Amino acid sequence: MNPQTQIKRKMELPRVPGSQKTYKAGQLFADIRVPFRRIKLSQAACPSASTKEKYLDLYDTTGAYTDPTWIQSGAETIPATRQKWIADRNDTVSQIASKIKTALQAKTGRNVSQMHYARRGIITPEMEYVAVRENADPDFVRQEIASGRAIIPANINHPECEPMIIGRQFLVKINSNIGNSAMTSSIEEEIEKMLWSIRWGADTVMDLSTGSNIHAIREQIIRHSPVPIGSVPLYQALEKVNGEVHKLSWDVFKETIIGQARQGVDYFTIHAGLRRDYIPLTIKRTTGIVSRGGSIMAKWCQIHNKENFLYTHFEDICHIVKTYDVAFSLGDGLRPGCIADANDQAQFSELKTLGELARTAWKHDIQVMIEGPGHVPLNLIQENMQKQIELCHESPFYTLGPLPTDITPGYDHITSAIGAAMIGWLGTAMLCYVTPKEHLGLPDKEDVREGIISHKIAAHIADVAKSHPLALKWDNEMAQARFDFRWQDQFNLCLNPEKAQRFRAAAIEGQNMDTDTNYCSMCGPKFCSMKISRNLTADK
Amino acid sequence: MNPQTQIKRKMELPRVPGSQKTYKAGQLFADIRVPFRRIKLSQAACPSASTKEKYLDLYDTTGAYTDPTWIQSGAETIPATRQKWIADRNDTVSQIASKIKTALQAKTGRNVSQMHYARRGIITPEMEYVAVRENADPDFVRQEIASGRAIIPANINHPECEPMIIGRQFLVKINSNIGNSAMTSSIEEEIEKMLWSIRWGADTVMDLSTGSNIHAIREQIIRHSPVPIGSVPLYQALEKVNGEVHKLSWDVFKETIIGQARQGVDYFTIHAGLRRDYIPLTIKRTTGIVSRGGSIMAKWCQIHNKENFLYTHFEDICHIVKTYDVAFSLGDGLRPGCIADANDQAQFSELKTLGELARTAWKHDIQVMIEGPGHVPLNLIQENMQKQIELCHESPFYTLGPLPTDITPGYDHITSAIGAAMIGWLGTAMLCYVTPKEHLGLPDKEDVREGIISHKIAAHIADVAKSHPLALKWDNEMAQARFDFRWQDQFNLCLNPEKAQRFRAAAIEGQNMDTDTNYCSMCGPKFCSMKISRNLTADK
Repeated sequence: MNPQTQIKRKMELPRVPGSQKTYKAGQLFADIRVPFRRIKLSQAACPSASTKEKYLDLYDTTGAYTDPTWIQSGAETIPATRQKWIADRNDTVSQIASKIKTALQAKTGRNVSQMHYARRGIITPEMEYVAVRENADPDFVRQEIASGRAIIPANINHPECEPMIIGRQFLVKINSNIGNSAMTSSIEEEIEKMLWSIRWGADTVMDLSTGSNIHAIREQIIRHSPVPIGSVPLYQALEKVNGEVHKLSWDVFKETIIGQARQGVDYFTIHAGLRRDYIPLTIKRTTGIVSRGGSIMAKWCQIHNKENFLYTHFEDICHIVKTYDVAFSLGDGLRPGCIADANDQAQFSELKTLGELARTAWKHDIQVMIEGPGHVPLNLIQENMQKQIELCHESPFYTLGPLPTDITPGYDHITSAIGAAMIGWLGTAMLCYVTPKEHLGLPDKEDVREGIISHKIAAHIADVAKSHPLALKWDNEMAQARFDFRWQDQFNLCLNPEKAQRFRAAAIEGQNMDTDTNYCSMCGPKFCSMKISRNLTADK
Repeated sequence: MNPQTQIKRKMELPRVPGSQKTYKAGQLFADIRVPFRRIKLSQAACPSASTKEKYLDLYDTTGAYTDPTWIQSGAETIPATRQKWIADRNDTVSQIASKIKTALQAKTGRNVSQMHYARRGIITPEMEYVAVRENADPDFVRQEIASGRAIIPANINHPECEPMIIGRQFLVKINSNIGNSAMTSSIEEEIEKMLWSIRWGADTVMDLSTGSNIHAIREQIIRHSPVPIGSVPLYQALEKVNGEVHKLSWDVFKETIIGQARQGVDYFTIHAGLRRDYIPLTIKRTTGIVSRGGSIMAKWCQIHNKENFLYTHFEDICHIVKTYDVAFSLGDGLRPGCIADANDQAQFSELKTLGELARTAWKHDIQVMIEGPGHVPLNLIQENMQKQIELCHESPFYTLGPLPTDITPGYDHITSAIGAAMIGWLGTAMLCYVTPKEHLGLPDKEDVREGIISHKIAAHIADVAKSHPLALKWDNEMAQARFDFRWQDQFNLCLNPEKAQRFRAAAIEGQNMDTDTNYCSMCGPKFCSMKISRNLTADK
């Protein structure tokens, strides 16, 4: 089976109705083509309508899979958008990565991170690309990268990646987790989940596979992904020692991160902040340590009676990742696993260490974000954000939820979206999704979509609360379409147009589905408040 | 067809698994039996577990429909819990309400509102009932009612109602809207929606029917409902004049509220705060007036060039409702219908008037809550709550959402839950649910459940954020069950145990569904963080 063929076929099916791919050019670099999803809007049904624009361009994460030109081209791989940019910088060399492929690496003594360029005053094509994508000034992007307040995760071995930026001055992003466990899933399923994720708007995807065959799964995911791919190298390192924690070592870990960096992983979760001294702080917790990586490293520390080797070897890790531009996502191994454990000494001790590690990484011009909780009640969320900004020197925050209650298995995507919207508004740069299966099992395709959409909602609500002009414009187009009874435009402006249209069709079953029916089906034709209000306005 | 028989059969089916009905007695009154849903918890699988209690009692809104004694009794109606209490007060008389029935009314010169008793220092059985329900002191309940900070909606003609309290010192409540429109639905369907609502935890139900046959529908809903029923009398008044707004008058409205008060409606939405002078403030809005009642009254004011008759006759309304103890839910006819219109002059002008009307109602010892928006971005929610407390003198706030974005038709239950959790935490006493069909059509049964559960989540998250002991206890039991791998207890503690169990079963398909399998299916047996963490703790 040819996976590319299979994927193209699948991706043609779920294109978002009522919109089409469009590209915008940059000004500094000739070959920059930034994708958008363009929604065509009809002229207002009512002559008094204030809609002047006839389309709305939205941020697009779907890559070539929704580009008709690419679909028709018969190409077997997605475009390597960044290949020429990387080559033009002339600071990399090709090395043999395995029996069948080569990988890029920085020339000896060079540093290929976006932060490194930014600090030297260089605006890269990647920076202009995200500037066009976010309607920002390219030099502002550069400054944010240089200061550490934002990152562009973009491994030089992932040229297929369409650059995106994570930072609180930009649109709030969301991450989707995929990956098999020891128990389930195959390569095809995981690629399908990745594609399904970007189809619904995931900005990055983490491969959390822990079972067998994970190297091959990851390779296929990266080659097919137009969004950055993150991983937790510790899981593969543990596979290499047959799951026996005491056999983990710096050497095994080092070999693992080199292998993954050469594949093109864009960011690594590294649980280097869980210091040995913090472990006793978790003993009185209700749910102890709930991070997989955290519990593994805690166990290792206790068995060997030694400091966490990810902490002691942190600068060694820095020397490796900067030659590929892998960004750090510093893991919160001691995040609270329930409301009762939120904001405790264990959590904040680790956070402080993560802030120190961020400074160490920045010495090497390595891009860093910080992972955050977890389970936190609404009244304690703000303290998390404040402490992260203070202790981690404004590096981007990347949170899992947080979930503001423990009692909602089966609906944790909603619970997480509630905490995520709030912390996103307060300054978190990226939200890790949670699916309805959280705490119960691994998500299937349907769960992935529900998880993504609920967190797209949270991210957008955060953008609106931060008065981001692109977000406000979207809401405004919807509001105007609603007041004008432009039903088709309302559907097209939805996160899931087909679902909205199906719901409306069910509501007015048996009638003609007229696109400009001048009432809504909640009130019926006689009492429609919008209709009455329109007429009030028209009377004036 | 006998509707009772039908309902009993239906309500036996969806009893919450893993729990059973239990009752707690009061101390002041002999016949108080307050229902709870008792979840039996197994002994901890692990000897180090800290669980001492073997059950958790949860607030229960399902009435007799989940009481095996009542189900087996063959009774055709649900118990009239309050009948004797009302009779014992000896301040009512029975009057002919229609050809087939009588209704209670206060004796001449008497006031039968809970606020009236509270202000005279009387603790009623209703007050003790809610005190037991909320684990509060009965005299504290009385004080909250007397001050206007809380209400017990309980019409003397709705003896089937199990008393509940709405106020920010108590558990946050949720309301479910049902009701047919001109286009759809029947009596059976509406009763089924009401029962389905309380099955999933609705604390009150509003009947928003606007079509034909609404008087008969309401009668059946009230007679079958153990929770307070709210209505918007204006809709029926408009039906009486064939939907012709200009024919609306105080006389038609008066007749309507008397009719509904005699049926037993527990609270009325009255759009008396929309004063004529505020209408021009809505002209420049993006979506004008989106409240049905608001747009109807605005139209009436414009046609007649007169002040809103609900405002001018407000004291007349007070004289009527206090003889039945119908509570006011003062409607926000000028609530914003989109983000762009939030917190504008029209909205806050009306809110100020609602506060003045609350004072007028309190002169008559009438219980009052204030309705709130609507569509509000997260960053403007706090101002809504602050202004409501200030302008409306701490009367309970009852909000619709708010929705912090406009772009999510098909998922507005999630969007609304996000705004609702936040405003609930800040002090809103009751959250009106929004279903996935909002802005698209009327909800079906599945939508009602999703709307209720998402807002139960929001209300609970608010309770947790306010550190309500009953809420924290629930979370704590879940967290401990999770850490102990007590899977069956986890399911039983969920809002929807069957869904959680189904998800888990799918996740571990092909294996034995062991209730104390010592790992979770996200990580698999080898990497389970909880398992590793447990062992860490045990090693100490």
